[in-house]
Order: sequence, then C-alpha cells, then structure tokens
Amino acid sequence: MRKLFEYNWQVRDDWFAWCQDVPEEELLKKRTGGIGGILHTLFHIADVEFSWLSGLQGKPDFTEPFEAHASLEKVMALSARFHEEVRPFVLAWSPEMEEKELSEPTPQGKPEIFKYGEIMRHVIAHEIHHMGQLSVWSREVGKVPVTANLIRRGLY
Amino acid sequence: MRKLFEYNWQVRDDWFAWCQDVPEEELLKKRTGGIGGILHTLFHIADVEFSWLSGLQGKPDFTEPFEAHASLEKVMALSARFHEEVRPFVLAWSPEMEEKELSEPTPQGKPEIFKYGEIMRHVIAHEIHHMGQLSVWSREVGKVPVTANLIRRGLY
Repeated sequence: MRKLFEYNWQVRDDWFAWCQDVPEEELLKKRTGGIGGILHTLFHIADVEFSWLSGLQGKPDFTEPFEAHASLEKVMALSARFHEEVRPFVLAWSPEMEEKELSEPTPQGKPEIFKYGEIMRHVIAHEIHHMGQLSVWSREVGKVPVTANLIRRGLY
Repeated sequence: MRKLFEYNWQVRDDWFAWCQDVPEEELLKKRTGGIGGILHTLFHIADVEFSWLSGLQGKPDFTEPFEAHASLEKVMALSARFHEEVRPFVLAWSPEMEEKELSEPTPQGKPEIFKYGEIMRHVIAHEIHHMGQLSVWSREVGKVPVTANLIRRGLY
C-alpha cells in the first residue's frame, strides 16, 4: 500500500516541478476531460486524498473550492500541508486495517459502508488516473509529460 | 495486490464495452498524448501486463506490433487470451513474492534488477495511467468516459 502512495507523492512533486516552466494561463486554461484543467486537477488530487484519509481517521474533510487556491504557489502549499497530515496515517498502515469499515452518508442520507482497504486503493487509483489526463494535456502545451513509470524511481 | 488487478480488468472490460458504440475510425484515429490512439492504448495495456507478468514467470514476452491486431475484435481477443494466462499468477500472488528479483538486460546489455513487488505495482499503475488518457479522448469523441472509481464496483 505504502509504495503506491509514495509513487503518487513522487509523481505529484514531479508535476509541480513540470509546472514551474509553464505559463500560469496554460495551467489554469479550461481543457477537455477530467476536472478540466492542469492546476485544478492537482488541487483535486490533493483534496481527494486528504478528504478520504481524514474520513478514515474520523476527521472532517476539506471543502474549500479550487477558486480559493487557484495559483501554482497556493496548490503546492496546500498539497504540502495535506501531505504532512496524511503521511503518518499511510506510513502507519497495517494489514489489520484492511477490513475496518467506514460509514459515509449518501446524498440521500442512507449510510454507505466501505472497507478501509477499499478507500485506500480508491485514492491510489484516483490520483494515477488523473495523472494520465495531465499527460495528454502536457502534449497540448507542447511539453514532454512526467514519466508514469513506477520502476527506476528508487522506490525499491 | 489482487484487488488492483481486478479493478484494472473490470475497467478494461468497461472500456471494451464503451468501444462497441464508437466508429472504428475513431478508435484508430491518431490522438495527442500517450500511445496515440484508443485501440492502440488498449492493445498496449494488455501487452505490457502480459509481457511483464510473463517475465516474472520466466516466459517469453509478446513482441507482435499493434498493426497485426488493429481492430476492436482482435484487441479484445488478445486481451482475453492474455487474461487467461496472467490471471492464475495474480491470484496465486503471496507477500513472500514481493522481494523476489527479476534481472532484465538493458538495451546496453547490462542486467537491471527489479523486485517482483515493484513490477506488479508498475503494471497496475501503467494501466490506470493509460485509462486516464482514454478518459480525455472519450470527451473528444463526445462520449461519457468509463468511471475510474474503484469504490462501488463490488470488489469489496
């Protein structure tokens, strides 16, 4: 579990570094698919990871809109802040936590039950999926995307 | 490990179902980013999963080009054939296999060492990443993409 989170954190930082050379208007530009923009996607990834992992810890999720954080500097700061909060939980993950249950109310108010292991994998897949979208938009901007390879990252 | 492979197999099948309503010229059309097309991406995902998992089992990888399989029917048949071959290995995965080592020659002929657990996660992330690209191209075709959600798939 931990290795895939570490992979995502590394790839996210690589994308933040990639963003440094890109004009902010390109980062904010509305695009086809996904959440509709590069910076908004990076905000969304950090938000979703933080909110689900807060839920698993019985803490409130994050509800601020992207518009309150719509610059590279602000999204990077938010992601770094969230990282400090989620990292200890991920590093303390153990197989016994797989089957723990989280009850979340649906919009209709009925409780929906998820396993902790299910939420953790959902968060992992969520980030990788959105990074795939960034890789397409990267070519639209005329830049080589960050590599998605998990091998050769020093994770093992 | 197994759950993320099962997720990928389900999502891949959802994309094959999605493809049924799309004209083949759209599936074959050259697109920006990634491997450059919808059907080529689905071929590539199946190929990469099969080839790495064959390597872990000491079997030869797959070397045929996309051009030999460039129709929805052929890619689906190839993916189904590969699935039968990789599934038993994934289902038999156990934590003791994490640290086993695979030695692969680099293009320069020097051996490169990977852990089995590293390759398995690389294959998982590889497929999810490419599915993210499909989701952008899906909107270009004017269709709603397959959901990337891991929750609410009956996996848990």
